[in-house]
Amino acid sequence: MHVLWNDQLLPRHEVHIDLEDRAYQFGDGVYEVIRVYGGQLFLLNPHLERLQRSAQAIRLDLPWSLPQLAHRLQELVAANRLVDGAVYLQVSRGVAPRAHAFPRAIQPVLVAYPLPASRPTEAQERGVRATFVEDIRWLRCDIKSLNLLPNVLAKEAAVERGAQEAILHRGETVTEGSASNVFIVQGRVLRTHPANHLILDGITRRFVLELAAKEGISTVEAPFTREELLSADEAFFTSTTQEIVPIVEVDGRPIGAGVPGPVTRRLQQAFYAAVQAVTQQQV
Amino acid sequence: MHVLWNDQLLPRHEVHIDLEDRAYQFGDGVYEVIRVYGGQLFLLNPHLERLQRSAQAIRLDLPWSLPQLAHRLQELVAANRLVDGAVYLQVSRGVAPRAHAFPRAIQPVLVAYPLPASRPTEAQERGVRATFVEDIRWLRCDIKSLNLLPNVLAKEAAVERGAQEAILHRGETVTEGSASNVFIVQGRVLRTHPANHLILDGITRRFVLELAAKEGISTVEAPFTREELLSADEAFFTSTTQEIVPIVEVDGRPIGAGVPGPVTRRLQQAFYAAVQAVTQQQV
Repeated sequence: MHVLWNDQLLPRHEVHIDLEDRAYQFGDGVYEVIRVYGGQLFLLNPHLERLQRSAQAIRLDLPWSLPQLAHRLQELVAANRLVDGAVYLQVSRGVAPRAHAFPRAIQPVLVAYPLPASRPTEAQERGVRATFVEDIRWLRCDIKSLNLLPNVLAKEAAVERGAQEAILHRGETVTEGSASNVFIVQGRVLRTHPANHLILDGITRRFVLELAAKEGISTVEAPFTREELLSADEAFFTSTTQEIVPIVEVDGRPIGAGVPGPVTRRLQQAFYAAVQAVTQQQV
Repeated sequence: MHVLWNDQLLPRHEVHIDLEDRAYQFGDGVYEVIRVYGGQLFLLNPHLERLQRSAQAIRLDLPWSLPQLAHRLQELVAANRLVDGAVYLQVSRGVAPRAHAFPRAIQPVLVAYPLPASRPTEAQERGVRATFVEDIRWLRCDIKSLNLLPNVLAKEAAVERGAQEAILHRGETVTEGSASNVFIVQGRVLRTHPANHLILDGITRRFVLELAAKEGISTVEAPFTREELLSADEAFFTSTTQEIVPIVEVDGRPIGAGVPGPVTRRLQQAFYAAVQAVTQQQV
């Protein structure tokens, strides 16, 4: 496997992270996971633009332009002959003697490498079980930072309860999943938490909102409660690697008819078509 | 410099952190900073006990007993001929392909090495300026985890405002510093935030509460507001590396007489005496 390490493509075993890297000691960095379909980085620009916004939010100056980053990620995909999978990309503030405040004159450290990823067809077809977990994260969830311990603990809680994903809630308000966004369908309306400081504005979240608009489905970005989710007609998760996954049960209670609903199905079909268009472009 | 890396003492350049170390990608780990005076690890056991509690809180099983850890840290101090300084110690959940939930069969990664540290005599003598910063951290601040980005941003905000440290507050309630605890003196009573999920229960915090009790100073662990801090007779920070540092000004407003007060001075003297007792024991 080849890894993009700053400006170099290196074999994985030649990449050594320093123990004083601020990502290692403070989680002081930002990241993205970008899906690759047919050798193409899907929705690459929105991902890179979000990376830049996350970096700006923690005042980490990226020393690369977005076109430079795009070019290097394409080289990474080519070097690994990656057809279907994902690319993980993270940027740390850099290496410096340990102290909380920003070091002067520090060079960011970029690491990017391929992750395995394939469409979770069974989950998308049958839907999955979810579980409620209290959202105890910080109040800048809009930053895609490396401080992911609460997400890790929420996901682990879900797995241990036999669920695929955690549905986070602050008090009664549903925010998002541990590594996904949450949508519900109420009648003819698709609803999801607004993109504020309490959620990570998923690239797939936004793409699904656009697909819905094209499909003539009304959308509203407004918070909803746990009770509203439980009484919704349909519900689903979105994420870069999971795409659109129906939620058919939450903590033992069925959502809608307990099977994936028609609006979810339409959006999945629209999503598959968008992916197919990209991969055919390639061929 | 020698670094303790799991069970080995290695020259620093031989320690390579893996890019799939969960501390690097998720901040999935815990840490301690332990002060060394006269070659002695100060308050070592309370630090190691807290490390164990932090690890348990994130369900990371330490594969070493606390006496084993103590022994290795003492070997680290000896190998580096460390007399006056500190030891940084962190434990990551380990290395595994990236996925939020806990990997099965994973080995924790321990890294420990010396940090420079010396008594900040001028700050302790004259006192420092502080600034209020909104506390936006997660709701498990009692865990000494590697998710430190909000602390980093708060400290940086303080530095940029010409202050030594940030005083974090949730709404009007003062919680703690970005890397310290905050105490106030009201009349004859010493007051600090209770050790709950909103603060990190500092080892120096607890030691100062004990010193105060021995000195006959009344103590109360109860939250206080920003206004109560501003109208207090005295205020100070405590931390492992800073010890007891008087706060003489917050955002341009003097605390008490704007100079270190008598209760703070008494506690500093008691602290210096405790340190001296340890270093003399050594000789």
